[in-house]
Amino acid sequence: MDKENLAAVLERIREEVPLVHSITNYVSVNDCANILLALGASPAMVETFSEAYDFARLASAVYINLGTLTREQETAIMVAGIGARHKNIPLILDPVGCGAIPYKMKIINNLFTTGKIDIIKGNAGEIKTLAGQAAMVKGMDSLEEGAGAEEAAKAVAKAYNCVVASTGKIDVITDGIKAVKINNGSAWFGKITGAGCMAGALCAAAAGVCKDYFLAAVTALACMSIAGEAAAERADAPGSFRVALIDSIYRLDSQDILERVKLDGLVG
Amino acid sequence: MDKENLAAVLERIREEVPLVHSITNYVSVNDCANILLALGASPAMVETFSEAYDFARLASAVYINLGTLTREQETAIMVAGIGARHKNIPLILDPVGCGAIPYKMKIINNLFTTGKIDIIKGNAGEIKTLAGQAAMVKGMDSLEEGAGAEEAAKAVAKAYNCVVASTGKIDVITDGIKAVKINNGSAWFGKITGAGCMAGALCAAAAGVCKDYFLAAVTALACMSIAGEAAAERADAPGSFRVALIDSIYRLDSQDILERVKLDGLVG
Amino acid sequence: MDKENLAAVLERIREEVPLVHSITNYVSVNDCANILLALGASPAMVETFSEAYDFARLASAVYINLGTLTREQETAIMVAGIGARHKNIPLILDPVGCGAIPYKMKIINNLFTTGKIDIIKGNAGEIKTLAGQAAMVKGMDSLEEGAGAEEAAKAVAKAYNCVVASTGKIDVITDGIKAVKINNGSAWFGKITGAGCMAGALCAAAAGVCKDYFLAAVTALACMSIAGEAAAERADAPGSFRVALIDSIYRLDSQDILERVKLDGLVG
Repeated sequence: MDKENLAAVLERIREEVPLVHSITNYVSVNDCANILLALGASPAMVETFSEAYDFARLASAVYINLGTLTREQETAIMVAGIGARHKNIPLILDPVGCGAIPYKMKIINNLFTTGKIDIIKGNAGEIKTLAGQAAMVKGMDSLEEGAGAEEAAKAVAKAYNCVVASTGKIDVITDGIKAVKINNGSAWFGKITGAGCMAGALCAAAAGVCKDYFLAAVTALACMSIAGEAAAERADAPGSFRVALIDSIYRLDSQDILERVKLDGLVG
Repeated sequence: MDKENLAAVLERIREEVPLVHSITNYVSVNDCANILLALGASPAMVETFSEAYDFARLASAVYINLGTLTREQETAIMVAGIGARHKNIPLILDPVGCGAIPYKMKIINNLFTTGKIDIIKGNAGEIKTLAGQAAMVKGMDSLEEGAGAEEAAKAVAKAYNCVVASTGKIDVITDGIKAVKINNGSAWFGKITGAGCMAGALCAAAAGVCKDYFLAAVTALACMSIAGEAAAERADAPGSFRVALIDSIYRLDSQDILERVKLDGLVG
Repeated sequence: MDKENLAAVLERIREEVPLVHSITNYVSVNDCANILLALGASPAMVETFSEAYDFARLASAVYINLGTLTREQETAIMVAGIGARHKNIPLILDPVGCGAIPYKMKIINNLFTTGKIDIIKGNAGEIKTLAGQAAMVKGMDSLEEGAGAEEAAKAVAKAYNCVVASTGKIDVITDGIKAVKINNGSAWFGKITGAGCMAGALCAAAAGVCKDYFLAAVTALACMSIAGEAAAERADAPGSFRVALIDSIYRLDSQDILERVKLDGLVG
């Protein structure tokens, strides 16, 4: 994977302004909308049962985040998933809290059954939970004790035939066979709410312009990580970091990607 | 319309601190609350069926925004509208997404039937959708192909007998007969979420102290537009612009209105 | 009460990273999450009926805010309260708007009956409403006309056998017998949304590491108040103040508490 490819996806986002249909949590929804706009995409939060099916079919990508699930969102998520499947619109899932809250697994399984999921973006803990679930449901081998984020991500990607983007100090993106690691980012991400959600929203923006969802996910997490680094150079506390992060996403250009991104794995 | 009148409305907001009962979307609700406080108004988000009727009757103005409609909001909007009608409290509607999502038209028609709407604040596209709807429902002439924002706004204002504030590069405010254009603003408004919602909330604050709703809407959009210009002088990216926008609304004074606002049309 | 004790609670928050299960309003939820992270706690917003009971039992503290109550929140609040009672997890209530909206009193009474409330954090007006309610329901003497915030807070604390933290120009914290006043803070708190909610969330963080809920509440309001003062030194408008407030909470240390906090009453 050449960093030129990532830069090209960023350019395409800005040219095509993908419409990202988002059903997300009420904690970070404003941050997700603002970071999508700053990157060059167009956010639309549409959550009612009567609208979500039709709207998903018009969108460039659908972003589903389970952070603060309501009953109305549950039904909206299902019909948005069906709409995305019918028109082959990419669907990105952020399974926030699926480890702590077993009920969320039911939603995820429903989405796989009646809709589709093209990219799962979660933190390493969430991805491990999904790997354990895949082992139970699909009769696959369990992860070995002490297995790392990469093994878990690969297991989930294989089990569910999708791209998995696992975030942490080092991000891992895999389609089950190939994998890329990103060695960028900032410790400040852990001191603000919504950093993971914003990364997921950016995956949706990238998938909205790039049918190679593996490349899309790598681009999105690379943009988020280097923007975090740039923001950390301008801020020394979390309130200022949040503001600087949105500014940095807006200012990102191809040159930043070529110079700053540190990829491991399939580097071209 | 003399700019002194606009400045007087701003002064009155700060003296009377109008209570703005808001039922709005979960994306920009925090921004709406903060901009109302920064302008000098008092926001209150009250959305339950059992409370919305009584609370609307206590408020200085009611602000209804359809951005992310929930079932609970639907019922709250109806009873708030009825409460506003009974006590003749001004009601300001922001029909976010009424073009993309036909279901929202039903809510709007219900509001006109059982409640009231004094100001509709929408972007040019939303106002055109409403003009098309008015032509169908009311048997009025359709807009001609290529009709501009002003024609659409006038058609809606006439059809529904209310003030229409249509936002865009140039804002148009009309009561169906007279019209004013505002030639201020900032391209940054398009790079943050909630700029339109905040403008609508400010219309409610102004209507809460000024029974001339045409003047109230002109004042609100003028304040928003020149605060955006002032913020753009202090920020060069959207995260910083958002912070500077709230600061600039807070700092606005009569002098700014007299010196900065560029009105076309009914200028005194 | 020695200020060393307050400093020790702050240290413990940063060491133990208490998990604060929050069910709160959609206006300031993002601010609450960010201020909890900035202080050193871990926020989790969990609101579905099926999850709230189990999750409350895992949390260090439960924070309930009635700002924009939904039907789903009503049921989640009840089961979270029951979960908190079963495991003796501290529960902090923020009765936002209980004066203006009588329906909220029902929720509060239910919480006292089936769950528990360890700290009530409200503004002086809300605490007076609760005192009036206590007089009616519990047959206690009514407050005398013109009674101050301290009398009201003591009456509520006695009636409900909990700690009461009443915010205003001067904050009052009482368990019904002893009382402490905090003479810090900033007028900017009144110009942003969510300052009270954030103070309540901090009470939950402190109670999550300190079983002396009186000390916990004093620590939380002291941290909020002196961070507000520090933020006011760096900002001259409300948008900037909000950013600086989060930064200041993050930067707070023991030294700030010892040097800045002005306690009246039980000072050691």
